Amino acid sequence: MNSDHAQLAGGSNVHPADHLIELVERMAAPVCVGLDPVLERMPTSLQPRERSLAGSAAAVQRFCEGVVEAVAGIVPCVKFQSACFERFGSAGVAALEHSIVRAKRAGLCVILDAKRGDIGISAAHYAAAATEAFRAEGAPGPDWITVHSYLGSDGIEPFLDAGLGTFALVRTSNPSGDALQSLELASGATVADAVAREVAQIGEKYVGKRGLSTLGAVVGATKRADAARLRELMPRQVFLVPGYGAQGGGVDDVLPCFLPGGRGAIVTASRSVIYASDPNDPSWPQRITEAASRFADEIGKAVGLR
Amino acid sequence: MNSDHAQLAGGSNVHPADHLIELVERMAAPVCVGLDPVLERMPTSLQPRERSLAGSAAAVQRFCEGVVEAVAGIVPCVKFQSACFERFGSAGVAALEHSIVRAKRAGLCVILDAKRGDIGISAAHYAAAATEAFRAEGAPGPDWITVHSYLGSDGIEPFLDAGLGTFALVRTSNPSGDALQSLELASGATVADAVAREVAQIGEKYVGKRGLSTLGAVVGATKRADAARLRELMPRQVFLVPGYGAQGGGVDDVLPCFLPGGRGAIVTASRSVIYASDPNDPSWPQRITEAASRFADEIGKAVGLR
Repeated sequence: MNSDHAQLAGGSNVHPADHLIELVERMAAPVCVGLDPVLERMPTSLQPRERSLAGSAAAVQRFCEGVVEAVAGIVPCVKFQSACFERFGSAGVAALEHSIVRAKRAGLCVILDAKRGDIGISAAHYAAAATEAFRAEGAPGPDWITVHSYLGSDGIEPFLDAGLGTFALVRTSNPSGDALQSLELASGATVADAVAREVAQIGEKYVGKRGLSTLGAVVGATKRADAARLRELMPRQVFLVPGYGAQGGGVDDVLPCFLPGGRGAIVTASRSVIYASDPNDPSWPQRITEAASRFADEIGKAVGLR
Repeated sequence: MNSDHAQLAGGSNVHPADHLIELVERMAAPVCVGLDPVLERMPTSLQPRERSLAGSAAAVQRFCEGVVEAVAGIVPCVKFQSACFERFGSAGVAALEHSIVRAKRAGLCVILDAKRGDIGISAAHYAAAATEAFRAEGAPGPDWITVHSYLGSDGIEPFLDAGLGTFALVRTSNPSGDALQSLELASGATVADAVAREVAQIGEKYVGKRGLSTLGAVVGATKRADAARLRELMPRQVFLVPGYGAQGGGVDDVLPCFLPGGRGAIVTASRSVIYASDPNDPSWPQRITEAASRFADEIGKAVGLR
């Protein structure tokens, strides 16, 4: 599979990394708002009358549509946490699909945070769920998806070959990730370093016009000590950086994830933006717009894009 | 979370490992039929008239119902490959849910091969998708689920705490899995060994009356050289063993995965059973029953249960 083929992302002709870079430059903010909707924290006015799966899924969809409208034109990118939708079964997955289409139509770059991880034909099926299943309905699908790296290239290439931008898990932001990821290999490197080298190598074939690959990497903001080394090991990967804000990462923690000129990384924040308002505040969309603007400004200035 | 709590699997009061062991003993066959349905290989009579998502999902569901009826009473267990359903979007997920309920009501132990891998609240959401989402409809859900290990205990315990039997990926059957899994650590062990130790330790709290844990391990049949060592490292884990048959693993390859007495492992085969008939054969359910019987007999005899 060559990079010509890889340009067919979500039914468009744009290389996913080139597309993301252009949106980031236009907004002067390498940030992403994470949509991790849970009923308990959503605005009171959107709560479902009954807690059926369909009622809950519809409420989550309404909230996502509100967030999408509130942040479109403010940030380049949103990320949907698939688990928050899947918990409501097939009704939740339908709500996820509708919300993704809404975000795409609002001009946002969409990351599907599904952390899929299977091999060969099964990986191709997962990629089809994020591409063909949308095209079959004439709708735009996600631009990027998150995937696991433990299965090697067999678990990653089918997503790239389907034209999806693909963030492979390299270094996660959670405490227990260290148990495996920071183990020392006989070579002196860590397990996460070995994954990084593998990702850099797989991604070489998929580099776009702007010098970055369709294969990116998830590198948590709470692992500052590792970020600079991982940046060296993966010079052509876009880093997706979770853990900012609610999970404890600050501006200084995310800076080593960037290439010069504020390029090559996307910082993501969820709870600090989408739950910025009191649940009873009828102006909650405005509060979300304000929180997204502050987040974009904070990171945009820190990396020199504003 | 103690093992009392962990006994609430899929809405029942049975410890998932105890339940699986009992079914295996009753059938005298530690095997699982994998449902990886693809339209191209399904019986001609079931093909959808049009290739819409809903039409395709309905066809896959009809096939699964036929396979479930054909193998119930022959094997203890079926495994659904989530990707094959998700590729048809929310309609596919609905077909998966219906097929799981059908299998449970036919008395089969059900493994959802979803290979989920996220942390904390997101992992809890994925667990809810396989438990609460079924209970909300008054339906029985899967008994077991497959998950990734790269995130450590944060990515595994939420599934156990939801009462799900959980197979963590330790050693996969695909060629490129070696790139990471067989790397040598400074300690002399491999990465897969380190994951095995972690899994054994996390699983200790969840051991049932029959001496096996609710936390099991995926160990591919194509990694015979590793199987005996992994068995030693994980004495209380049920091994889910893919790669038999179509992927090249034979009887000798799976034997080291077992504990004495044919205990502690489940060998899974998919294509060699569910596509046992010519697509035009109107007696395809009978061919599937025969193939499942041969498979159960082959493994049952090899491990001394028949």
